Amino acid sequence: MDIDVLRSKTPEHWTRACAIRALTLDAVAAANSGHSGMPIGMADVATVLWSKHLKFDAKAPGWPDRDRFILSAGHGSMLLYSLLYLSGDAQITLEEVKNFRQWGARTAGHPENFLADAIETTTGPLGQGLATSVGFAMAEEILRGRFGSKVVDHHTYVIAGDGCLMEGVSQEAITLAGRYKLGKLIVLWDNNGITIDGKVSLSDITDQPGRFRSAGWEVIEIDGHDPEAIDAALTRAKASAEPTMIACKTHIALGHAAQDTSKGHGALTNAEQNTEAKRIWGWTGAPFEVPGDVKSWWEDVGARGAADREAWEGRFAGLSDSRQREFSRMMAGEAPKKLASVIRALKKQVSESAPKVATRKASEMVLEVVNPVLPETVGGSADLTGSNNTLTKDMGVFDVENRKGRYVYWGIREHGMAAAMNGMALHGGVRPYGGTFMAFTDYARPAMRLAALMQCPTVFVMTHDSIGLGEDGPTHQPVEHLAISRATPNTLVFRPADTVETAEAWEIALTQTGTPSVLSLTRQNLPTLRLEHKTGNLTAKGGYVLADAEGKRQVILIATGSEVEIAMAAREMLQAEGIGCRVVSMPCFELFAQQDEAWRRRVLPAGPVRVGIEAATGFGWDRWLLGERGREAKAAFVGMDGFGASAPAEVLYEKFGITAANVAAKAKALL
Amino acid sequence: MDIDVLRSKTPEHWTRACAIRALTLDAVAAANSGHSGMPIGMADVATVLWSKHLKFDAKAPGWPDRDRFILSAGHGSMLLYSLLYLSGDAQITLEEVKNFRQWGARTAGHPENFLADAIETTTGPLGQGLATSVGFAMAEEILRGRFGSKVVDHHTYVIAGDGCLMEGVSQEAITLAGRYKLGKLIVLWDNNGITIDGKVSLSDITDQPGRFRSAGWEVIEIDGHDPEAIDAALTRAKASAEPTMIACKTHIALGHAAQDTSKGHGALTNAEQNTEAKRIWGWTGAPFEVPGDVKSWWEDVGARGAADREAWEGRFAGLSDSRQREFSRMMAGEAPKKLASVIRALKKQVSESAPKVATRKASEMVLEVVNPVLPETVGGSADLTGSNNTLTKDMGVFDVENRKGRYVYWGIREHGMAAAMNGMALHGGVRPYGGTFMAFTDYARPAMRLAALMQCPTVFVMTHDSIGLGEDGPTHQPVEHLAISRATPNTLVFRPADTVETAEAWEIALTQTGTPSVLSLTRQNLPTLRLEHKTGNLTAKGGYVLADAEGKRQVILIATGSEVEIAMAAREMLQAEGIGCRVVSMPCFELFAQQDEAWRRRVLPAGPVRVGIEAATGFGWDRWLLGERGREAKAAFVGMDGFGASAPAEVLYEKFGITAANVAAKAKALL
Repeated sequence: MDIDVLRSKTPEHWTRACAIRALTLDAVAAANSGHSGMPIGMADVATVLWSKHLKFDAKAPGWPDRDRFILSAGHGSMLLYSLLYLSGDAQITLEEVKNFRQWGARTAGHPENFLADAIETTTGPLGQGLATSVGFAMAEEILRGRFGSKVVDHHTYVIAGDGCLMEGVSQEAITLAGRYKLGKLIVLWDNNGITIDGKVSLSDITDQPGRFRSAGWEVIEIDGHDPEAIDAALTRAKASAEPTMIACKTHIALGHAAQDTSKGHGALTNAEQNTEAKRIWGWTGAPFEVPGDVKSWWEDVGARGAADREAWEGRFAGLSDSRQREFSRMMAGEAPKKLASVIRALKKQVSESAPKVATRKASEMVLEVVNPVLPETVGGSADLTGSNNTLTKDMGVFDVENRKGRYVYWGIREHGMAAAMNGMALHGGVRPYGGTFMAFTDYARPAMRLAALMQCPTVFVMTHDSIGLGEDGPTHQPVEHLAISRATPNTLVFRPADTVETAEAWEIALTQTGTPSVLSLTRQNLPTLRLEHKTGNLTAKGGYVLADAEGKRQVILIATGSEVEIAMAAREMLQAEGIGCRVVSMPCFELFAQQDEAWRRRVLPAGPVRVGIEAATGFGWDRWLLGERGREAKAAFVGMDGFGASAPAEVLYEKFGITAANVAAKAKALL
Repeated sequence: MDIDVLRSKTPEHWTRACAIRALTLDAVAAANSGHSGMPIGMADVATVLWSKHLKFDAKAPGWPDRDRFILSAGHGSMLLYSLLYLSGDAQITLEEVKNFRQWGARTAGHPENFLADAIETTTGPLGQGLATSVGFAMAEEILRGRFGSKVVDHHTYVIAGDGCLMEGVSQEAITLAGRYKLGKLIVLWDNNGITIDGKVSLSDITDQPGRFRSAGWEVIEIDGHDPEAIDAALTRAKASAEPTMIACKTHIALGHAAQDTSKGHGALTNAEQNTEAKRIWGWTGAPFEVPGDVKSWWEDVGARGAADREAWEGRFAGLSDSRQREFSRMMAGEAPKKLASVIRALKKQVSESAPKVATRKASEMVLEVVNPVLPETVGGSADLTGSNNTLTKDMGVFDVENRKGRYVYWGIREHGMAAAMNGMALHGGVRPYGGTFMAFTDYARPAMRLAALMQCPTVFVMTHDSIGLGEDGPTHQPVEHLAISRATPNTLVFRPADTVETAEAWEIALTQTGTPSVLSLTRQNLPTLRLEHKTGNLTAKGGYVLADAEGKRQVILIATGSEVEIAMAAREMLQAEGIGCRVVSMPCFELFAQQDEAWRRRVLPAGPVRVGIEAATGFGWDRWLLGERGREAKAAFVGMDGFGASAPAEVLYEKFGITAANVAAKAKALL
């Protein structure tokens, strides 16, 4: 690459782009860690995108109809921080850039959505940004379908690297985007031919344009250092009805000694080489210094969108008051007041009629009353609609011809679904929930973790939550998945015991604004155990006394979900022998842990023998069994200590010893 | 589809294939659960493949040079069970077929490799069979490269469904196969256009042939009910230098009332419809009855391979004795005797030289001495070779022109790598290990779970195992991943504290035959703590006393990995104040739990205050802190209770309070 030719061809563009390059080099060198090569390589693409196409207002990063910019190749975070600082973002200041990767800085190693308003999504785990962007683009389509293009009409731009495209989730993402014809999704592939281990060809020879075309995408191939070509490609992409992938041939660490090498991917900290690179670029500023004219040009770029925003505000004001309120409420993620009343009514009705249904069916009963009053819900399933019971009447199916549809057929793409749901939640205006089998939590894990980290209130509807699913056998029977979800920070894991608890769990999940929820639901039928209607949400306490001991309290049985029924039967047996037995239903460990000590002690007083019951691994149960402070109780656990097996559910419960008789026997053995 | 035309065109083939169809219908109806449509739709393909191409000997299912048959669409398990029963497998008897999906049967809902010798791999979680097959095909190439094509020369055949191809892992798998030109891998795609939720087009419009071609595959498109076309395609596929995908256009549940519908995917249990389907097929046998001539033709198919096997045995006998022994040892998965001695020598040397290195580096030191004496190891990394330290000198790189190479550049494909490693382990003859960052356990999870379920001794080298990785921040910092792996049944999770423990962990991992191992290794340097050489493997005890209390034992500190150093420093502080303090290193929870009670009580006696220290969630620690039986100790935990942050490692440890001073303070507060 002849830098001199580039410099002389479009000198102004070159200098503006070099501001990104220089800031990147300086910040990474100061931190002595980070990734220099990608921002340097993609500076031209980013400069053209931000200055000529991206609709944003640096002073109002949260403006609803802004274009979304997603740096899927999150290790190149200095690209984003440079762009934000240069264009005048109020949070990503020069001080922050200088504190790149330091404690307390907004400029974390990888972009974190919770650290600055202008960071749309956390990226870094490769492929996630791309997969999440599908949800951003879907949310835009859905809201446009509902509120019209005068109020909702923006693009989602993604910068993705080779790593993003090699991760499997990228296939799920691009085939979803192709199927649903997300024409406003534009992916700029940083085609630099380099990974950490060496050349891409070391491990991959995929014809990426061919692959994207096979998924229904428009593909444009350009020189990623040619500003005119970049501009033309973006113009064409915006006009395309299909999602567009722009393959940008670039040179990683352009102009640096490490150019076009895997060394260029990482932290370029050699002072001499860095000085030489700046000389080659023609950059004369001191470290972290951007010439006034360049900075002011960039600030104009950041201010350009103010007019767009103001025009939008005018159009928004043209909506009726109630439509404005509805839009604002949905964007804020506030649940409508009606939610509490429909949940309460359902709980009352169910406590009276006492249906015997699977909690996946109970979940559907809840959704049937919730979806009509929460127009922001967008449901879906990874090809298990009839099993997850996620589709309710009148949602309509999201499709190319029906953008208002609120149900997404995600196909067999658990990971893509989970990531896209996060994207919807981050975009705002919609509240996503989606289903698969609990065992396939595994497939969705990387995105479920990000939901927790990014503080997305995504709802994961995980049915068939134990050996109770029966004959499909151990591949489909979760054993460790409750523990996996519970071990994850900032995640609410609900395992409701009946329809009442299911309704309560949904109420909590749908009022979260910064925490995802996992609903662990049965395939098999369960009786209604909450026969006395209470208006309060007992599940919100995490654990509570479902049935207290008669006579002296000698035993406490703690159970969740389908095993609460077993605990109740064991209690009958023990009481029949004169052994006082309390049953504690514990639908949510996390919420129980959040209660004050008085509540926890009231529910689980020291002294009585404790038996925990859950058709899963006991890993993580000891806190409740042994007592939070230790020295509280003798305890046992009835559950699984290995994988399940293929057989009818009742046989499995019997063979694995998860029975009332066994629970009673274990309790008695400890007395 | 006009069944009469099919029947009359190739009547003998038709009847033979219908044996599969009828057995499937009967078994699923008897179980009242399962998946009928896929075996019915793919019966023609399977019949031609097994009778004309698949190299196998029904009487010797474990013969090393057999072709491997992998039913990636594992829900269609009755296809495999029918084929095995018909062709005379000794384990899958008619009785087993009649007991489909019942307790104790070998005919589980999804094929389980540990239930019958002829089942190569567990399938069911979609895409896994396809991804695993890549490892089978690689192992074949590697062994052929080493032992020659007279001894190793077989194909890997896969039947994959739409679900397999929609899962992201399929993209990682097919791009690996394309890159490494695995010409002996042949995938038969059951292109029936139906998923559970409806038509494939409901959620996917991918041009699959185009997609496979973009990954470097040969693609052949055929009518999957035309035996001549199937035969010709297989012949062509076997001649191809590239991996081949045969797109077989089929009709799910062919001839049944549910044909070509999503209902046909599941259990077809309507007696009347089933009778009518058999009538249309021209099948007159009673339930589970196969006409003698048809059964005997199938048994001939099963016997056909005996000659191949005998010829192979002759060729194998032509190898030198030592080569034969080596091949047999490697296929049996037995570690060579030299392993113990090189590990012992390294431990001795390291105890003396006391290096201060990261355990990822320690792991490399171990591999440097192990790989030369274990020619069966195949290492690799998901594009983090220099970070995972998985490549040692003289391994050679596996490539199209170097099939003997023992190192695989997996690219940014953690999931594909993990699945392929399982395939290698299942194929036998090679012992796979592969690295990525510990946080990306998430990406590999579905295959890591299958490793445990399938009893594969795969070794997962997970480096950068805590906030100790520093500036990359919370996306890259594992918090819950130790808990995730520990919660998984049949998995050994090692978190060694220094180079000695790392060597011991590797020794255990490399001698497993039925259990995968996770090595959790640091990025940051750690001192050598095991300064006194012991020939025995202390890590094999799971936990042991690293330093005992001086004076009265008042405190026990339990720590793993990088936090053992902190525990030792805290001990110094406490002892300086006259508080007797024991430090227990606990590199493997699972092995500690397997020790007899005497050992566990010796290491963790009741009474003294306990503090657990691990830079991770405390979820799962209470068993050791509170005492297995409860009432044993007052306890505290020093670790993480949320996600990490981006900053230098030392700053993070300080800010999150994982310090010796804090540990000492917590212990004192409990006294």
